[in-house]
Amino acid sequence: MRVGDRHYRSLWADAAPGAVHIIDQSRLPHVFETRTIASVDAMAEAILAMRVRGAPLIGVAAAFGLALAVARDPRDEAIERAAQQLRATRPTAVNLAWAVGRMRERLAALGPAERAAAAWAEAQAIADEDVALNEAIGRHGLAILEREHARRKRPVNILTHCNAGWIATVDWGTVTAPIFMAHERGLPVHVWVDETRPRNQGLLTAWELASAGVPHTLIVDNAGGHLMQRGEVDLVMVGADRVTRRGDVCNKIGTYLKALAAKANGVPFYAAVPTPTIDWGIEDAMAEIPIEERSEDEVRIVRGLDPEGRFAEVTIAGSATAVANPAFDVTPAELVTGIVTEKGVVRALEAELAALRPREARSRALT
Amino acid sequence: MRVGDRHYRSLWADAAPGAVHIIDQSRLPHVFETRTIASVDAMAEAILAMRVRGAPLIGVAAAFGLALAVARDPRDEAIERAAQQLRATRPTAVNLAWAVGRMRERLAALGPAERAAAAWAEAQAIADEDVALNEAIGRHGLAILEREHARRKRPVNILTHCNAGWIATVDWGTVTAPIFMAHERGLPVHVWVDETRPRNQGLLTAWELASAGVPHTLIVDNAGGHLMQRGEVDLVMVGADRVTRRGDVCNKIGTYLKALAAKANGVPFYAAVPTPTIDWGIEDAMAEIPIEERSEDEVRIVRGLDPEGRFAEVTIAGSATAVANPAFDVTPAELVTGIVTEKGVVRALEAELAALRPREARSRALT
Repeated sequence: MRVGDRHYRSLWADAAPGAVHIIDQSRLPHVFETRTIASVDAMAEAILAMRVRGAPLIGVAAAFGLALAVARDPRDEAIERAAQQLRATRPTAVNLAWAVGRMRERLAALGPAERAAAAWAEAQAIADEDVALNEAIGRHGLAILEREHARRKRPVNILTHCNAGWIATVDWGTVTAPIFMAHERGLPVHVWVDETRPRNQGLLTAWELASAGVPHTLIVDNAGGHLMQRGEVDLVMVGADRVTRRGDVCNKIGTYLKALAAKANGVPFYAAVPTPTIDWGIEDAMAEIPIEERSEDEVRIVRGLDPEGRFAEVTIAGSATAVANPAFDVTPAELVTGIVTEKGVVRALEAELAALRPREARSRALT
Repeated sequence: MRVGDRHYRSLWADAAPGAVHIIDQSRLPHVFETRTIASVDAMAEAILAMRVRGAPLIGVAAAFGLALAVARDPRDEAIERAAQQLRATRPTAVNLAWAVGRMRERLAALGPAERAAAAWAEAQAIADEDVALNEAIGRHGLAILEREHARRKRPVNILTHCNAGWIATVDWGTVTAPIFMAHERGLPVHVWVDETRPRNQGLLTAWELASAGVPHTLIVDNAGGHLMQRGEVDLVMVGADRVTRRGDVCNKIGTYLKALAAKANGVPFYAAVPTPTIDWGIEDAMAEIPIEERSEDEVRIVRGLDPEGRFAEVTIAGSATAVANPAFDVTPAELVTGIVTEKGVVRALEAELAALRPREARSRALT
């Protein structure tokens, strides 16, 4: 998407194996910087420090991380080591494990001499497919927005949590794809953007929407229930880090609270995800999905601009205060109206989800 | 309660009419300062700027504000003007209107010459009664904690939102009174403290609990639902700015989301309030309670300490981003397990609430 007068992807690679370029999201939206990544160690650090973030994007980033490792050392042990290193960075998102698995499958049949070029091409293919997936999600999500608009004859009010925008993917975004498409077609939309403490990824969503000229309003995470009670929200749409075969949605902490409020107030609740986000191997989301516990400093320290406009941080709670920082929660399928995928919108029911990818659903295993 | 090695109330008055002293809460817990208030204008500013805050405390502050006005000019018109000025500062909390009404009732029967001394004494009486009310709430709330502990034989995990602590009252606090009492008696408790964006009043609660040595953990507002799903919360207890005669609870924005999660997970949800917080005149909470919309800057600007330990602020969202900042929401009575008052714990039912104050309940009007 556009930043200023240039078109960007959130991640783009050199033509030959060697280097990948990213928009460094760790100081966005306050500071816009790009960064070049030339090793698997640097890519693992970028994922861990959330320079790249968003479930779809970290899948692509991990694929390129593996390709960078293979470019240096194409032997099985090196690939195994890199795969482990990348998988350990973010335990909750399933796309990361999916992308690493797909890369290993592609490389397993090849001799070491062929691997570097093949790995680079496969990572690039995953990136290009991600763009296509999100564009397809956009078309299916757009139909939902068109239907809501036809029914109400006024701007459609969408509430979203965290950032499932184009910088959480390679381009388009999952939640933002239908919103951008609606806006381009002149369908009036307005987005309530949850701040999304502790890391305030809502500010990224606001930045994306502002760049595209989409009307939006930033709110604290506490406000969504009140807005739904007052009829100010027509639908909730969020991304997800993992969707189980039964339709439970694991997404950024706080999503569950919005889903409860949506249910209580008759507001439709959608998760927009590419089908690689569906984890066919999970039966019991509460028991089986590992919930990443992130650094206490994410809660203690808030970043922004100081009165002189410089990037700065303030500590809101000292080290004497104990802090817990679970990064994700699980929204049970019964609170979910629909899952918007690249293959269409389905209800959060095992049979409807399985029909999207029958082969994977039957195998019940991550590739 | 104690701050360092000294005992404080959140507000204390000179013996003769003239000046009131407050703990200035606007930079707490980062900076501890006291301030002297000597006019109704200064008191209105202190309430508006949330130097004094918390529904019970702003009632007491408004009473002294009126007494300060009377000390300068005891005529009816001056009293009327001061009452209007004070009522306009915070429209949601009912204690403020209640305290101003009580002061006016006391003064109406007196000649101008008697009013200054009578007003000062009445404001002091309201302050002293507030301490007694909170202590009584503490005893009734303590019984709930004792019951939970007897059942579980392990520390009781309480989740609270915003600050209903001793600095939100004159002393003790509503939610914190039973917690302090439990801790003093050796009953093990642990408090999950919601950060409470946008103003982060949870940091005040954490500061109070730390001063008293009560185990607690700070969490972002998004985390509570997840913790309840995992069985990590035994009960939720919050304060309230207004409780309707039907038992609907109007409290800091985000309370409703926690109440929904509590209901969904079988976690008891209590509001701890002195009975002057009950508004007998409200039939329909959603339609009749004015919800204060506060400054956008509360969302945009976050305060804390810079790396050198100086009080500082960062702007997380620029003025180009639209912001909405509703300060309160309404939790419907059906989500409320009980209302903890100075007269005992009742269910959120009109008949049980009316039995607490039959005369006011019948008159259906604010005094």
